[in-house]
Amino acid sequence: MNVILASTSTLFGGNYLEYLTKELTELFKGTEEIIFIPFARPGGISHEEYTAKAKDFFSGLNIKIKGLHEFANPVEAVHAAKGFFTGGGNTFLLVKTLHELGLMGVLSENIKKGKAYLGCSAGSNIGGINMKTTNDMPIVYPSSFDCMGLVPFNLNPHYLDPNPDLKHNGETRETRIKEFLTQNDIKVVGLREGNWIRIRGNKITTEGTEETRIFEPGKAPYELKPGASLV
Amino acid sequence: MNVILASTSTLFGGNYLEYLTKELTELFKGTEEIIFIPFARPGGISHEEYTAKAKDFFSGLNIKIKGLHEFANPVEAVHAAKGFFTGGGNTFLLVKTLHELGLMGVLSENIKKGKAYLGCSAGSNIGGINMKTTNDMPIVYPSSFDCMGLVPFNLNPHYLDPNPDLKHNGETRETRIKEFLTQNDIKVVGLREGNWIRIRGNKITTEGTEETRIFEPGKAPYELKPGASLV
Repeated sequence: MNVILASTSTLFGGNYLEYLTKELTELFKGTEEIIFIPFARPGGISHEEYTAKAKDFFSGLNIKIKGLHEFANPVEAVHAAKGFFTGGGNTFLLVKTLHELGLMGVLSENIKKGKAYLGCSAGSNIGGINMKTTNDMPIVYPSSFDCMGLVPFNLNPHYLDPNPDLKHNGETRETRIKEFLTQNDIKVVGLREGNWIRIRGNKITTEGTEETRIFEPGKAPYELKPGASLV
Repeated sequence: MNVILASTSTLFGGNYLEYLTKELTELFKGTEEIIFIPFARPGGISHEEYTAKAKDFFSGLNIKIKGLHEFANPVEAVHAAKGFFTGGGNTFLLVKTLHELGLMGVLSENIKKGKAYLGCSAGSNIGGINMKTTNDMPIVYPSSFDCMGLVPFNLNPHYLDPNPDLKHNGETRETRIKEFLTQNDIKVVGLREGNWIRIRGNKITTEGTEETRIFEPGKAPYELKPGASLV
C-alpha cells in the first residue's frame, strides 16, 4: 500500500495541505490525476467548491483532480482511478454516504491493490477498522460504523491533550478513548495535529512533528516518536 | 410533565448534584423511591458503584434509589416506578442499551404520564428528539439514534463557547451544531454547565446561572436568559 492518513489538512496559521507538500509529491509520484472524495463536508461549501479547493492545491503539484460526485457511476470511477484523496468534515456523513453508494469496500480494495490514498481528518478515520473513535457529532445515522481497515487499528485525528486549566466537566479526549477501550479490543492511535500515518507496502509508521499517543486495552497510554513503526 | 434535563451532574469544584439540591427537592416532592438508570457509564465504575453514588446524594433528601440493572424485568420496573434519574456517561452506550432492553418508549411513556424525571448530560440528551447532538464518542453502534422526545428539540449538554486562543483545527461546538442543522430541521438548545431545562406540565423553561444558546435552521444563534420559555 501507499497511503497517508493525516490528522488535519491545515496547520494553524498555514494554508490548505501546505505542510504536507513534500510528502504528497512523493505519495502521488507518477500519478497525473486523482479522485477527490468530498462527501464529508456537511455544509457551508458545496461538493464543487470543496473539490475546487483540492484542485487549487494539487495544480501546484501538476496533478489533476476530479470530484467523485461528478461521476454518474462512482463505483466504476473508483475502479478506474489512479489515486484518491478524501477531505475532512463530518465522519458520520462521510461513512453514511460511502455505505449508501456501496463505495467503502470498493475504495478499500483499490487502495489495498496499491493505488495511492491521502486522507485528512474524517478521510483518515475511514482508514481505520471502524469510525468509533471519531470526534465528530453524529448528525446523521450511517447504516454501519465499519470502515476500510487499511490499518489494523483505529485513529483519533486532531488528538488533543487534556487542558488542566479548563473548568468544564465534559470528558477529555483521553477519557473518551479509554471509554472506547472498555467496549472494543482495538488499538487507538491518537494523531496530534502535525502528524500523519504513512503506509509503504506493509510498513506502517507514525510521522510528523509531534509524538503520537497510543492507547491499547489493558495498558497505560504511551508515546511513539516520529518514524516509529506502528505494527 | 415534571422533568429536569441538566447540562451536567457536577459543577467545577462542587460535589455530585449539589448545585441542584433545591430543584431536586421540589422535582421529587412526595416521591419516596426513584429508579436510577446507570447504563451510560462505560467503565471505571460498575453499575453498582454508580448507583451507590446516586444513593449517597439522594439519601440526604430522604429518597431511596434502586438501580434499574437490579431488576430481572426492567420494563415492569419502569412501569411500577414513581420517578427516574438517568446519570451521565456515554450517550451511545445509554441509547444502545435502552433500545436493546425495549426501554426507550416505555420510559418516555411513563414520564409523559407525569412521573418525575431527572437527566444529567447523556441522561438529558435522551430527553430530546434524537441523540444526534451529543458530544460523545460513538464507542458502540445503537440500533437507532431516536430518543424520548420529552421536548420538541434536541439538546447539547456541556455547551462550550469557542476558545479564540486555541491553535487547533478541530471543529468548535458551534460549528458542529451548525453542521447538524444542515442535515436536520430540528432546533438545538446549547446548555452551558450550570443550566438545566425545566418542564412543568406543558411549560418548558431554561433555568440556571448562564444564558442558553439556541440554534435554529436558517437563523443566527441567539441567547435566552434564565427563566425564558423554550417553546
